[in-house]
Amino acid sequence: MLRLSTLFVRTLREDPSDAEVASHRLLVRAGYIRRAAPGIYSWLPLGLRVLDRIETIVREEMAAVGGQEVRFPALLPREPYEASGRWHEYGPNIFRLRDRKEADYLLAPTHEEMFTLLVKDLYSSYKDLPLVIYQIQTKYRDEARPRAGLLRAREFIMKDAYTFDVDDAGLDAAYQNQRLAYQRVFRRLGLPTVIVSAVSGAMGGSHSEEFLYPTPVGEDTFVRSPGGYAANAEAVTTPVPPCVPLDGQPEAHIEDTPDASTIASLVTVANERFPRSDRPWQASDTLKNVVVVLIHPGGERETIVVGVPGDRDVDMTRLAASLEPATVEVAEETDFARHPELVRGYIGPAVLGVNAPDSGAALRYLLDRRVVSGTRWITGANTHGRHVFDLLAGRDFVAAGAEGQPTVEAAEILEGDPAPDGSGPLTQARGIELGHIFQLGRKYSKSLGLQVLDSGGRQVTVTMGSYGLGVTRTMAALAEANHDERGLIWPINVAPAHVHIVATGKDGTVFAQAERIALELGDRGIEVLYDDRPKVSPGVKFGDAELLGVPFIVIVGKGLTQGVVEFRDRRSHTAQEIPVDDAVGAIAERVAEAQAALETYPDEDIA
Amino acid sequence: MLRLSTLFVRTLREDPSDAEVASHRLLVRAGYIRRAAPGIYSWLPLGLRVLDRIETIVREEMAAVGGQEVRFPALLPREPYEASGRWHEYGPNIFRLRDRKEADYLLAPTHEEMFTLLVKDLYSSYKDLPLVIYQIQTKYRDEARPRAGLLRAREFIMKDAYTFDVDDAGLDAAYQNQRLAYQRVFRRLGLPTVIVSAVSGAMGGSHSEEFLYPTPVGEDTFVRSPGGYAANAEAVTTPVPPCVPLDGQPEAHIEDTPDASTIASLVTVANERFPRSDRPWQASDTLKNVVVVLIHPGGERETIVVGVPGDRDVDMTRLAASLEPATVEVAEETDFARHPELVRGYIGPAVLGVNAPDSGAALRYLLDRRVVSGTRWITGANTHGRHVFDLLAGRDFVAAGAEGQPTVEAAEILEGDPAPDGSGPLTQARGIELGHIFQLGRKYSKSLGLQVLDSGGRQVTVTMGSYGLGVTRTMAALAEANHDERGLIWPINVAPAHVHIVATGKDGTVFAQAERIALELGDRGIEVLYDDRPKVSPGVKFGDAELLGVPFIVIVGKGLTQGVVEFRDRRSHTAQEIPVDDAVGAIAERVAEAQAALETYPDEDIA
Repeated sequence: MLRLSTLFVRTLREDPSDAEVASHRLLVRAGYIRRAAPGIYSWLPLGLRVLDRIETIVREEMAAVGGQEVRFPALLPREPYEASGRWHEYGPNIFRLRDRKEADYLLAPTHEEMFTLLVKDLYSSYKDLPLVIYQIQTKYRDEARPRAGLLRAREFIMKDAYTFDVDDAGLDAAYQNQRLAYQRVFRRLGLPTVIVSAVSGAMGGSHSEEFLYPTPVGEDTFVRSPGGYAANAEAVTTPVPPCVPLDGQPEAHIEDTPDASTIASLVTVANERFPRSDRPWQASDTLKNVVVVLIHPGGERETIVVGVPGDRDVDMTRLAASLEPATVEVAEETDFARHPELVRGYIGPAVLGVNAPDSGAALRYLLDRRVVSGTRWITGANTHGRHVFDLLAGRDFVAAGAEGQPTVEAAEILEGDPAPDGSGPLTQARGIELGHIFQLGRKYSKSLGLQVLDSGGRQVTVTMGSYGLGVTRTMAALAEANHDERGLIWPINVAPAHVHIVATGKDGTVFAQAERIALELGDRGIEVLYDDRPKVSPGVKFGDAELLGVPFIVIVGKGLTQGVVEFRDRRSHTAQEIPVDDAVGAIAERVAEAQAALETYPDEDIA
Repeated sequence: MLRLSTLFVRTLREDPSDAEVASHRLLVRAGYIRRAAPGIYSWLPLGLRVLDRIETIVREEMAAVGGQEVRFPALLPREPYEASGRWHEYGPNIFRLRDRKEADYLLAPTHEEMFTLLVKDLYSSYKDLPLVIYQIQTKYRDEARPRAGLLRAREFIMKDAYTFDVDDAGLDAAYQNQRLAYQRVFRRLGLPTVIVSAVSGAMGGSHSEEFLYPTPVGEDTFVRSPGGYAANAEAVTTPVPPCVPLDGQPEAHIEDTPDASTIASLVTVANERFPRSDRPWQASDTLKNVVVVLIHPGGERETIVVGVPGDRDVDMTRLAASLEPATVEVAEETDFARHPELVRGYIGPAVLGVNAPDSGAALRYLLDRRVVSGTRWITGANTHGRHVFDLLAGRDFVAAGAEGQPTVEAAEILEGDPAPDGSGPLTQARGIELGHIFQLGRKYSKSLGLQVLDSGGRQVTVTMGSYGLGVTRTMAALAEANHDERGLIWPINVAPAHVHIVATGKDGTVFAQAERIALELGDRGIEVLYDDRPKVSPGVKFGDAELLGVPFIVIVGKGLTQGVVEFRDRRSHTAQEIPVDDAVGAIAERVAEAQAALETYPDEDIA
């Protein structure tokens, strides 16, 4: 039994000033966590209990698909990450340090390298595979903008699993097993998730999916179509329109377009002064050239220009995903100052990339995938107040594909855009990424030399998957999914207690009865949080009970004179009186019902 | 059930080349841990199981004395450690790093500051106290010489508890409770420990004790007396002899002492050439001046000289404990080269400290506590081949007490030295420090401002204790205490399984019976490690079973034709045949007996 008189917790009336989202606000206010540094939290007893229960569910589902638990260090030497290339690729996103002998170390954000090396150390034959190993462990990322409490932290807990197989079919099966395990975990937690296609990013590998909990406070944007397509916005590919023949198209011509430094004003000016006969000019007829800065892993800044149809903004997240491991920032005044050829509002291809052959310093120029050969554009003429019309892609300008990346996924997705698989128009929503599963293939096994003998005695490179699940982030998502304006409402299988007993008033009988009920429930294996504080008002006690979020609240107070206690369901706000003599049995029954409801999800129910 | 055919483990025939001690050797060979970097280990499934069981016992005993579990980050900001002074004091012994915003962080070696701040954040009244909170958490120390596997690691797991009380009596009671909890933990683990007085070192505080597991491979030296005195050698205080009147003592005189650059040769030369009338000269009549280098927390090197009676060496560990937070190293050639006044073999007080008033650069001179005023010494005359006789402490030389530390505990302790409390002659032994408990008092609460209102409405500074228990180190100590030349022998309450079933031969009936026994034991809650490998020889299987160290081994093989299986006790090497039909019941009984024997230690038995 937890007694509130001695439990190490204090609730706060005020929201913490840095808390933007409900989970952050409520977990701090209810005394589950406390901030220790930006993106770094301490865990109080109630928080640790919830975390522990989530971890138990994850462990059970990992075991159910044959996962064996191991644990790696958080502090790791540079060498394996050097061998895989990630020491460099992670750039400023990892914490690095040197030991007293000046050797380089990192605080690991994920452990592909170490798992690969350990399997190489122990195993040598196809007979040893398949293998599924996982850990639940503290991880680190030096986030540029830690925010939203546990949602984007710098020290956090992840479950990361890794599978090892001799062939692609094995990897497929392992991947499907992990996918099923994730579905079971989130079903048991009562968390609805959407599985979306994702980009693999720095992790590498051929195929990956994310498990998102849909909520407007999520940082990830994802899309869905009526026909079942679902993807992280970063992973959406733009259907490339067909090329248009260059022959017979009008010549480009430069026109005066005063006061047309924005797309909207350019469309207005074009329609007023240079109307086209078939239809009015639209924003999508213009080519907008946006200046951005790439930050390469080594820290070098590169100013580039990205051309997108004028009806769309550049989506910095999608652009960044296209250009990994570099990250992307908006260009600043100083970046423009270094490039006087960039006339703001009138930037055009002629000064960019290979279109400016005489300029040794021309900026790299990337184009959205819609800008195919033969498409006609109104775009900047690189002079204040002038634009060029009928500029033809592939004839008058090309992307600066020197590095083999002429077109990129740079433009934002708009509601109604077609799904790339033809399954209909896309709708967008936001979500929290709870899990990300990867078919890594042979990236790590190749770079670190993990081979086994196959049944024919040949050395074959092992194929791998990696599967991350954010444990602390899942706890935050649970708080997002389970709260109201008064506080948290935990699902019973992760709640810090099953029943919160509140003794009100000053009557000794009340406290004696409350204590008896608490003890008898404890004897039945029911976990009780007992508010036994002697001199705290009922209002404060009720408020704390609603804030803390134990799913059932039992009030032992004045009703005792009529022989009843009050039983409240925290979620539905329903209350009923139950005879005090039957209270233990009745409460135990409700607890058992609630547990049974959450724990029985046959796999057939999983979509 | 764990099946060896799929369990992620490989045993090694050879000892790892860097393994000096049994626990390191066997935990690696048996596949419990693997080295990831110097002093940093990965945990395989069997290792994690043992670790988890030790943690459970620690949790239970913390709960039994009212401990509430919390968890702090490992990555912590500099500021609180700056406020307590430890950012500086820890010197190179902690891992430090900077985040992307150039803010200083450390990987915490212990969490006094954070616990103090959290209690300050939550609590404000004497009514909130006493409080006992603890965590089991990954900690870091950048050891100069990580060694012996888990015994001296750089990433390790500790239980650290902290108590908060309004007054000294409260702290005393809290300290005794923790002490009792530690005794219970080690009794349950079957680990004999010696509780010794200790020095508090960088932790601060007034009183501390260590729990040592006595073993020759331990890094700590401790002493005991017949009368019950027990202390870490670092904490032993030397009884100071009475001063001798200076009046009437002979004048100092310098003599030629060729070939007397060692204490032994000096004693010989003195007895040959300058015999004394009452008795022969002894080594203890000489004053040996030893040059050492202090490394201050900021990294500065300071060469000093320490004078000790010639019959004793300087004990670098005791000297270091006296000079914390500085550390101590042996002087190197380059240190001597910078000080030509140091004539090796003939160093004397005249060129040292305040005894050399004309030298602005004279080295600081510290003296052992036995060198009291009026004692007469033969010591170096700072010229090759010459010593000074009848040099009187307090008349002819003094310690360079500029910094208020004229005498130090510098000399080694010898067997038979008197205990400081008069309880008899000391004996020495070595041990592994498993726990260290501290009465911190108000060091941290004062520097970080932790006060509460007392019952009279006055602000009082809280008094604290801190209590560390090395969890991974305890696992190593368990391996030291429980092994033989063939492998590990786990106590049943921490073993990775209760029973190891070995199926031998190729007979399908053997595997079927072994499987049945394993499943039926599992149904009774007994944890089974089943060696189901189909094509592995009995010899290899027996060897693995003995190396892995599950306490009971059941061999299902040829005996089946006579209707028996073999039951072996791993520790006693005794074996008996049991009828296969009764095997499950008989095995379950033995397991239950072994569990009961370990788990029943009444507190009265605790010394």
